[in-house]
Amino acid sequence: MEKKLIYLDNNATTKVDDKVLEAMLPYFSSEYANPSSIYSFAKNSNHAVKEARGKIKDFLNAANEKEIIFTSCGSESANTAIRGVLNMNKNKRHIITTKVEHPCVLNLYQTLEKEGYSVDYIGVNANGELDLAQLEEAINYDTALVSVMYANNETGVIFPIEKISEIVKSKNKETKLFVDAVQVTGKIPIDVQAANIDLLGISGHKFHAPKGVGALYVNSKTMITPLIIGGHQERGKRAGTENVPYIVGMGKAAEIATDFLKYEATEVKRLRDKLEASILKNVFNARLNTGIANRVPNTTNIGFEYIEGELILLHLSDLGICASSGSACTSGSLEPSHVLRAMNVPFTAIHGSIRLSLSKYTTEDEVDYVASVFPGIIEKLCNISPYQDELDALRKLRA
Amino acid sequence: MEKKLIYLDNNATTKVDDKVLEAMLPYFSSEYANPSSIYSFAKNSNHAVKEARGKIKDFLNAANEKEIIFTSCGSESANTAIRGVLNMNKNKRHIITTKVEHPCVLNLYQTLEKEGYSVDYIGVNANGELDLAQLEEAINYDTALVSVMYANNETGVIFPIEKISEIVKSKNKETKLFVDAVQVTGKIPIDVQAANIDLLGISGHKFHAPKGVGALYVNSKTMITPLIIGGHQERGKRAGTENVPYIVGMGKAAEIATDFLKYEATEVKRLRDKLEASILKNVFNARLNTGIANRVPNTTNIGFEYIEGELILLHLSDLGICASSGSACTSGSLEPSHVLRAMNVPFTAIHGSIRLSLSKYTTEDEVDYVASVFPGIIEKLCNISPYQDELDALRKLRA
Repeated sequence: MEKKLIYLDNNATTKVDDKVLEAMLPYFSSEYANPSSIYSFAKNSNHAVKEARGKIKDFLNAANEKEIIFTSCGSESANTAIRGVLNMNKNKRHIITTKVEHPCVLNLYQTLEKEGYSVDYIGVNANGELDLAQLEEAINYDTALVSVMYANNETGVIFPIEKISEIVKSKNKETKLFVDAVQVTGKIPIDVQAANIDLLGISGHKFHAPKGVGALYVNSKTMITPLIIGGHQERGKRAGTENVPYIVGMGKAAEIATDFLKYEATEVKRLRDKLEASILKNVFNARLNTGIANRVPNTTNIGFEYIEGELILLHLSDLGICASSGSACTSGSLEPSHVLRAMNVPFTAIHGSIRLSLSKYTTEDEVDYVASVFPGIIEKLCNISPYQDELDALRKLRA
Repeated sequence: MEKKLIYLDNNATTKVDDKVLEAMLPYFSSEYANPSSIYSFAKNSNHAVKEARGKIKDFLNAANEKEIIFTSCGSESANTAIRGVLNMNKNKRHIITTKVEHPCVLNLYQTLEKEGYSVDYIGVNANGELDLAQLEEAINYDTALVSVMYANNETGVIFPIEKISEIVKSKNKETKLFVDAVQVTGKIPIDVQAANIDLLGISGHKFHAPKGVGALYVNSKTMITPLIIGGHQERGKRAGTENVPYIVGMGKAAEIATDFLKYEATEVKRLRDKLEASILKNVFNARLNTGIANRVPNTTNIGFEYIEGELILLHLSDLGICASSGSACTSGSLEPSHVLRAMNVPFTAIHGSIRLSLSKYTTEDEVDYVASVFPGIIEKLCNISPYQDELDALRKLRA
């Protein structure tokens, strides 16, 4: 019997929606013109890019299509935004970000520190919520950029972007706010105008478009230099022949995601809560790492004390269940998650923490099955844990 | 009756090969795992990227798969190579390139000049051949990088890369050679080892893979910094979740292109030569802009004296024929081509020059049809040209 796949790692990447694939297909071998060409054959591909730009504009509630730049991924969006803003404000040398940003963003800031920038990393509390007082205090006249993720990829904890924007703008009107929205896209509504965001990055493959396409919102008042210099594409802000199929696909995915926002907030959340509650109830050494923090509807991060997260993942994988211990970008690293460390998750649980992230494709049967196998897997791993005394004590405490 | 499309703009972009699309399809909605994930579901996508890397390695005859970096396009490959080498050699401030590079590369060098680099632009002769003596003279102790395209996108003229590499290395062993090979890929064999190339960029959509994927060869002795900083993908040289479908597609396209190299050198060349000869014979004011220069097999660049190239293109477009007056990246610009200007193409012909670029999909019927419509179109445009006296003189001269 073929093992059924249960994919609970939708924060790492998602399945491409069939309707997205269908929308893309004509642009590979039929409407394959370079959208910059002048002959009439290029009109359809040119129009398709324009239409997709409008859809992304609507998805983010941007004021103007000209504020949308297509990129090749979330990392490119972030690199373009961050380098682009700093290059336009070379006299300012101070940056603020968080301790729990995605590794892609953190690595860039470490490079910028070597280049002479001063970077403040704002901390989070035990539930993973950002320390807004620390943020407010850090902003000064020299702050070129505040760079905050919309929600954390590992915990799903949402940061209050409207509030953060208010703090930033009230302390220094010239400071630009870049929001890495990769982990909220398609999970909660995004409104760049309401939240007064200067730059915001998204990645197609986190909301059922393919890997290899992203977008960057840059509001009309914000100037950036291009990261990839060359042709006049994307109004001079991103060179390279447009990836027409994926741009069309991401436009379609945005449209579909808008329609599914309510489903995310209700049904995906219900399944996530059911799975989480069942594990917390039936596994004595489980703890919810985020407490009562406000989270995206699809994510749970649970610590299992005194056991190894990687072993849980391997046992789940044997049953066809995909989950992760953190960012796929750092898989294979033996270091415990920088996010959970920033939250001061106890040493006893940090190595045994795993993330389950659902999608609109997750079914009740899948959730029930996963919930049913957890107690057995954890019990097995407890039996081979070197911390038997501690586990016994915990068992008594929680009985 | 539906107008049949005759696509003779394959230097701008190409149709995705059906076999390439077929190879990609499983990676959208079935094998969609993030290749960095540790569960067994990710093994296939991880393996697929590895296999594609091997195919690109073979395609370029690189020594090692580790020398291949996947990117999102030719422009990204070029930006990564150029910035990457310069960042690793910050004490050297001199660069050499050519006057006829692709606009994407030229724009980057103009930016680098503003950043304090000194850039020499090597010229070409009337046939579009590079001035190797000028190149040799320009190289000095401070030359960090020589950046030369393998063949020109507008004229198809091939530059003698092995010879160029010899010149560079004999003058300064530390100077790195970057070759923009976007326009030769799939048209002539590439051998980075035989030609002793340090860095070489390609773009999938020029050889029947989709728009939005490219590769950069960096030999093991050459160090670069990443352009997109973040996750550990591509051995730390290019962050961002791998575009698995397109990477697989480009691998397949490379495999197919290898099989078609002989067809390019014989059949595509035969059709190009037939088309070119017919136009030169039957249109009195036509001139081959490249003379006897060595060219890729698919490209011809013909000047029509005293008329407007854009008007020729519009008339061709009305008949369903796609051609161009230069790089699609600069379409819409009224400036005459920087390539033809560097060749000193006469003022009388430079505005009336167009490029026809064939592919393996071009048929004899198409070529015959296009050849048959040219005299009528040109005659019509001659009749509305303001240069009637000059045209009459030319007519007599060539009669």
